[in-house]
Amino acid sequence: MRKEMFEHEITILRDTFGRLLRRHAHTNLTKLIHKTHPADLAVVFRYFMDEEQIQVFNIMDENERTAEFLVELDDTMIANVLERESPERISHIIQHASANDQSYILGTLEDEHAQSVIDLLKTEDQEEIEELMGYPEDSAGAMMTTDIFTLYQDTSCGDALKTLQDQEEAEMVFYLYITDDDDCLVGVASLRALATTPSETLLRDIMAKRIHSVRPETDQEDVAQIVAQYNYLAVPVLDSDNHLLGLVTVDDVVDVIREEATEDFLRMAGAGKDREILLKSSWENAKARLPWLFASWIGGIIAATIIGRFEHMIQSMLALAAFIPVIMGMGGNIGTQSSTIIVRGMATGRIEIGSEMKILLKEMRVGLILGGLYGIMLGIFAYFKFFDADPMLGVVVGLSIWCSMLIAAVVGTFIPMFLRKVDIDPAIATGPFVTTSVDILGVFLYFMIAGYFLAL
Amino acid sequence: MRKEMFEHEITILRDTFGRLLRRHAHTNLTKLIHKTHPADLAVVFRYFMDEEQIQVFNIMDENERTAEFLVELDDTMIANVLERESPERISHIIQHASANDQSYILGTLEDEHAQSVIDLLKTEDQEEIEELMGYPEDSAGAMMTTDIFTLYQDTSCGDALKTLQDQEEAEMVFYLYITDDDDCLVGVASLRALATTPSETLLRDIMAKRIHSVRPETDQEDVAQIVAQYNYLAVPVLDSDNHLLGLVTVDDVVDVIREEATEDFLRMAGAGKDREILLKSSWENAKARLPWLFASWIGGIIAATIIGRFEHMIQSMLALAAFIPVIMGMGGNIGTQSSTIIVRGMATGRIEIGSEMKILLKEMRVGLILGGLYGIMLGIFAYFKFFDADPMLGVVVGLSIWCSMLIAAVVGTFIPMFLRKVDIDPAIATGPFVTTSVDILGVFLYFMIAGYFLAL
Repeated sequence: MRKEMFEHEITILRDTFGRLLRRHAHTNLTKLIHKTHPADLAVVFRYFMDEEQIQVFNIMDENERTAEFLVELDDTMIANVLERESPERISHIIQHASANDQSYILGTLEDEHAQSVIDLLKTEDQEEIEELMGYPEDSAGAMMTTDIFTLYQDTSCGDALKTLQDQEEAEMVFYLYITDDDDCLVGVASLRALATTPSETLLRDIMAKRIHSVRPETDQEDVAQIVAQYNYLAVPVLDSDNHLLGLVTVDDVVDVIREEATEDFLRMAGAGKDREILLKSSWENAKARLPWLFASWIGGIIAATIIGRFEHMIQSMLALAAFIPVIMGMGGNIGTQSSTIIVRGMATGRIEIGSEMKILLKEMRVGLILGGLYGIMLGIFAYFKFFDADPMLGVVVGLSIWCSMLIAAVVGTFIPMFLRKVDIDPAIATGPFVTTSVDILGVFLYFMIAGYFLAL
Repeated sequence: MRKEMFEHEITILRDTFGRLLRRHAHTNLTKLIHKTHPADLAVVFRYFMDEEQIQVFNIMDENERTAEFLVELDDTMIANVLERESPERISHIIQHASANDQSYILGTLEDEHAQSVIDLLKTEDQEEIEELMGYPEDSAGAMMTTDIFTLYQDTSCGDALKTLQDQEEAEMVFYLYITDDDDCLVGVASLRALATTPSETLLRDIMAKRIHSVRPETDQEDVAQIVAQYNYLAVPVLDSDNHLLGLVTVDDVVDVIREEATEDFLRMAGAGKDREILLKSSWENAKARLPWLFASWIGGIIAATIIGRFEHMIQSMLALAAFIPVIMGMGGNIGTQSSTIIVRGMATGRIEIGSEMKILLKEMRVGLILGGLYGIMLGIFAYFKFFDADPMLGVVVGLSIWCSMLIAAVVGTFIPMFLRKVDIDPAIATGPFVTTSVDILGVFLYFMIAGYFLAL
């Protein structure tokens, strides 16, 4: 009954599926599907070939469990699986799922295909789905569950407990949401508080009145922030009149936090922000990665032009060219370190507005320390290796490393801070800006210093 | 009562604190502290100067709320705040906190200081804390809550409900954990199932028997994986005899997911893995970042040596030097994109074992597409700009960009996959390995191609 060896069990499951699929053992496959947790099925499903996916999905029941399985897949994969399915089969699969799962699944389909599924659902479901699908992607409205119920504030705890027991829809009840005469949310009580209070006590006397809530248009990242900050299990979503529209639950927040981290990773590396990039074709993949490379291409042309201007210096001392890579590399790396620390510090709330100057000064000190250290080390290497060319080359190289690392640390710190100030997502633009500007500045400085000390 | 404007309210709170602190308005400060949520207090606390932090912490009550506030701070900050406090005050603050909060707070102190606090606590608390502090850092044991209770499988639902109502300690009850005659965990039931079942039904008849559990030594990342995968609110921690030791709850998992993402970000950028690096001194900061820079320094020396070997080629055609930066830059960037996509894909379970070859081939295609595109663009630029030097330079530069981007995409994909195969955390080593090897390979290839086409 334990499942400590998570990966191990997934491997076994995958092998069993593989064997049954090769033998086309339908009856056994059906049994195995029934026995497997929808979330596990979603994990092993990714390993299947396209034809195997079709084979498995074809024998899956048209019920809620299959809907649960679907929502655990990546969007692109849901779309692939459902593409060939009839609107009838899809509507059977999702008809008993929660409204947010329904709209999530339908959101992956082509508009026309989705509409023909919606037309087959019950009128009340249709309205709810259309409302949910109307909220912006990545908003609280798009991810909230609407299977909720509220209790009136003058209800007694005993009556509330009875009402609760009759609720079949609301499967994950963490808190009780309590409303006033105008149906506005005025308080919340825990299930535990309800169970441990004398049954005649009114809800208004046990409820907490200070509630954090969000609007349907609130960005999912802000919702995640609130849930993480206060250790909540759910956050209510209210309209402008304080009516309860739905709940965002912690299990969805866990997914959001992972997704947002993935998007930030990709953005920082200039690889777009599509967390399903691995599922996309090579062309789409290349298209997403093109823009950052363009920035670095422009940077390269500028660097080439700068070096072209200093050609006469290289001519007098060929050894100068040998150190271009290390000056760029050291600068680029310390710049990436700084910008990553800053971007992540801002994302996790560790860099407060107002503390920028202090952090900039600290990064400057780090740049001075590391630049000094590696500058001396590389200077000594250059001195001995290229002593014949000019003994001063060591000084030039060492000083250039020092300056370019110092500047890179400052640029790497400043750019994300500046971007936040002007309301651009620091993760998006930091990568290209930092590496490109550090490359150009580093090369330029190197030749300026060389010109000064070597008098070429 | 809404708190949608999260940042806005924090700003107001911070300003109010600032005003009261400047006026040394003790009475009002005390009132404000009482009114503020411990989690909010932890957020604004970061903005205070050292002396302000001392001033605020001095007037905080010696109670559970203060302990709650402390655990919301970063480790380094807890240590700073408590450093000057007497063991007596610390023991008063933490005496009513949960055992895992106690051991978490004590874990930030110097061993001797922590021991003198432990000596002041109740014997039963002492034992529990010492047990928890004995588990490895970042393990399920170190993060589990031990305020739990179990129910015997032959208990009726009615009796279970009564027992539950008497439990004051276990504040966050999500599931009921059910044991057999040997006190082994055999099942779990939801609070809702309990409330909606006739009171004479036995727990064994309503409990789910298939439970995912972890061992105390399980890594927190694996625990997070299970909670995220199955949308659990808590995972039981069992010893080797299946006795329930504690629970890891979803709110702690939310923190783990964020922390692990931050650590991966820093590791990928070669900036260590200390997520509190921003709170550390410049020296410690520099020390954490030194190793990656060393890798890139070694790479730079190798590149310098390679270029030194080809000095005669630069001498015959100075323009060759001008394109060193762009060849390195383009290769480095596409390599970073590939490795980021792969490392993150592995962390989120999107890259399955067995699918490596397929992904490698796809990245190769992406490298061919993007390398071809940018190679042609740069080749044309080089052709026109340096036509006088040699019309073939355009071909050399274009072909070099193409080859180096293709190789970079392959290296950036292969290295993290290889590291996972040999059980090294791909995030740790990917950064330095990829950029350094891509730099060296790129420069080497460039001069080989130049030697072939230009016949220098």
